[in-house]
Amino acid sequence: MKLDGQTTRSIWLEPDGWSVGIFDQRRLPWALERLVLRTPGDAYDAIADMATRGAPLIGAVAAYGLALALREDPGVASLERAFAHLASARPTAVNLRWALERVRAAVVKQPTGERAALAYAEAARLCEEDVAANRAIGEAGLPLIREISARKGGEPVNILTHCNAGWLATVDWGTATAPIYLAHDEGIAVHIWVDETRPRNQGALTAFELAGHGVPHSLIVDNAGGLLMQQGRVDMVIVGTDRVTVNGDVCNKIGTYLKALAAQAHGVPFYVALPSSTYDPATPDGASVPIEERAADEIRFMTGPDDHGVAVRIGVTASPAVNPAFDITPAGLVTAYITQTGLVTDAKRLG
Amino acid sequence: MKLDGQTTRSIWLEPDGWSVGIFDQRRLPWALERLVLRTPGDAYDAIADMATRGAPLIGAVAAYGLALALREDPGVASLERAFAHLASARPTAVNLRWALERVRAAVVKQPTGERAALAYAEAARLCEEDVAANRAIGEAGLPLIREISARKGGEPVNILTHCNAGWLATVDWGTATAPIYLAHDEGIAVHIWVDETRPRNQGALTAFELAGHGVPHSLIVDNAGGLLMQQGRVDMVIVGTDRVTVNGDVCNKIGTYLKALAAQAHGVPFYVALPSSTYDPATPDGASVPIEERAADEIRFMTGPDDHGVAVRIGVTASPAVNPAFDITPAGLVTAYITQTGLVTDAKRLG
Repeated sequence: MKLDGQTTRSIWLEPDGWSVGIFDQRRLPWALERLVLRTPGDAYDAIADMATRGAPLIGAVAAYGLALALREDPGVASLERAFAHLASARPTAVNLRWALERVRAAVVKQPTGERAALAYAEAARLCEEDVAANRAIGEAGLPLIREISARKGGEPVNILTHCNAGWLATVDWGTATAPIYLAHDEGIAVHIWVDETRPRNQGALTAFELAGHGVPHSLIVDNAGGLLMQQGRVDMVIVGTDRVTVNGDVCNKIGTYLKALAAQAHGVPFYVALPSSTYDPATPDGASVPIEERAADEIRFMTGPDDHGVAVRIGVTASPAVNPAFDITPAGLVTAYITQTGLVTDAKRLG
Repeated sequence: MKLDGQTTRSIWLEPDGWSVGIFDQRRLPWALERLVLRTPGDAYDAIADMATRGAPLIGAVAAYGLALALREDPGVASLERAFAHLASARPTAVNLRWALERVRAAVVKQPTGERAALAYAEAARLCEEDVAANRAIGEAGLPLIREISARKGGEPVNILTHCNAGWLATVDWGTATAPIYLAHDEGIAVHIWVDETRPRNQGALTAFELAGHGVPHSLIVDNAGGLLMQQGRVDMVIVGTDRVTVNGDVCNKIGTYLKALAAQAHGVPFYVALPSSTYDPATPDGASVPIEERAADEIRFMTGPDDHGVAVRIGVTASPAVNPAFDITPAGLVTAYITQTGLVTDAKRLG
């Protein structure tokens, strides 16, 4: 997507041809800083410390992390060690393990000397597939927006989204945002309600993306969506997901579920955009998904720079905080899944 | 309630016998700073700038604001000017106008020379009535907690609350917190889920209160309540309110409605605690309540001190933000109203 007028992706090979560039998303949206990953440990740290975020992009970073490991040492022990370490960087995202398994399968039976190159090729293929999948998701979702626009006589279509399921969370286009970018690019008037998404404020990333691409939007607190739907100011919800289970339950950033309940209460269609890699055939339902609990200080301190870069304490340090990172939206609250093969309304047809 | 081991109220007369002391809630919970109000303009500023917050406490501050005006000039023109100005300080809270009308009625037909003293007396009476009403709300709500505690065999009763409807928002006890303080003081194990309550983080005030009084609690982001209810980790919800309309709709801090929807989805009882002054017989339903829209920068900047006191920018300034401060929870989602005359399940019996 566009950033400062330049078409930009979220991951690339550096000019040296082997080290891997990403944006440091902990510094976004205040500063656009690039990180260069030179070792599998760098890739692990980028994922675990959330310098990189979003299920598809985490997968791409992990894939390149395995390539970096094989560049250092192409032996099976090195491969397995890096695989296990990278797989442990985040517990919830299913794409992480999926991407690692793809790279491992592409190299493990090949001659030692070819493994690194094959791993790079597989990681690159995975990235291109992600771009194609997201564009296809966009094309599947675009008619939904077009239809509401037509019904509203060209008035802006108000779309609420939660967290960052944009191009910064994927390689390009994003998942939830792909239909939005396509709609905007074809001249449909849209206006995006961007949930702040506490505690890590990934909505600020979505706002940054939309501002960069020129898409009209407003930042709102996570608390506001219910009122806006009650007031008829939301035409549809589109969110991404970290994992969709066999029965169609949707694991996504904490707070998604509350928006799904509100959408149901007001007859607002609730769409979940996902690439096929986010469907998890190994997990029967949402109750089986382990919910990552992250550090209490993500709540107690609001991180973000003033002019110098500070973390601001929001409460008394005497108070404990509990910080689950994801929640489960039951399949019954999902109007349709927007996938790269089209709209799916019956979760049984996701597999 | 207790603060640093001292029984403390949220508003008092200073030793001079006429100026009015309050805590500067913009500095809480990081610093306990007292503000002294000496003019009706001071009272207006305290309300408009949210140095004082919470419908009942706003009423008390406004009442003393009128007394301060009459101390300066007890004429009818002065009274009406101060009344109109103070009434305009916040548009949503019904207690503000109610308190002003009480003080005006107590003085307007009295001799000029007695008006100031009568206004002070009426403001003090209003404060004592608030304390008594909140204690009565506590006694009405206490059996609900006792019952869940008994059913759980003494395991902690998990109570979710939103915003600050505690003693800092009233004169003492709070509304939503009164049953909690009474339960804790009688030895019932409770654990409070404290919603952060973006954008102004009033949950940090509730956490500060609970920590000061020794009540177990955890701070959570506003996004978390749906998951916690899904996981069976919330036994009841108690919130305060800024206004209850004739049909029982509940106007309260933005985000309340989302918690009410989630409570309904999971069979978690949802209680609204209110003094009779918060019932608004002049407004038929929630759709008729004007929703205050506050400044976008309340979202764009997270206010709170590091060691020096800073506002931290959370997003790109290029992005607009929309900031409605309240929402409407339809009466159908309310299990019961906890009032100073007992539990009310039929909104028709609130009047």
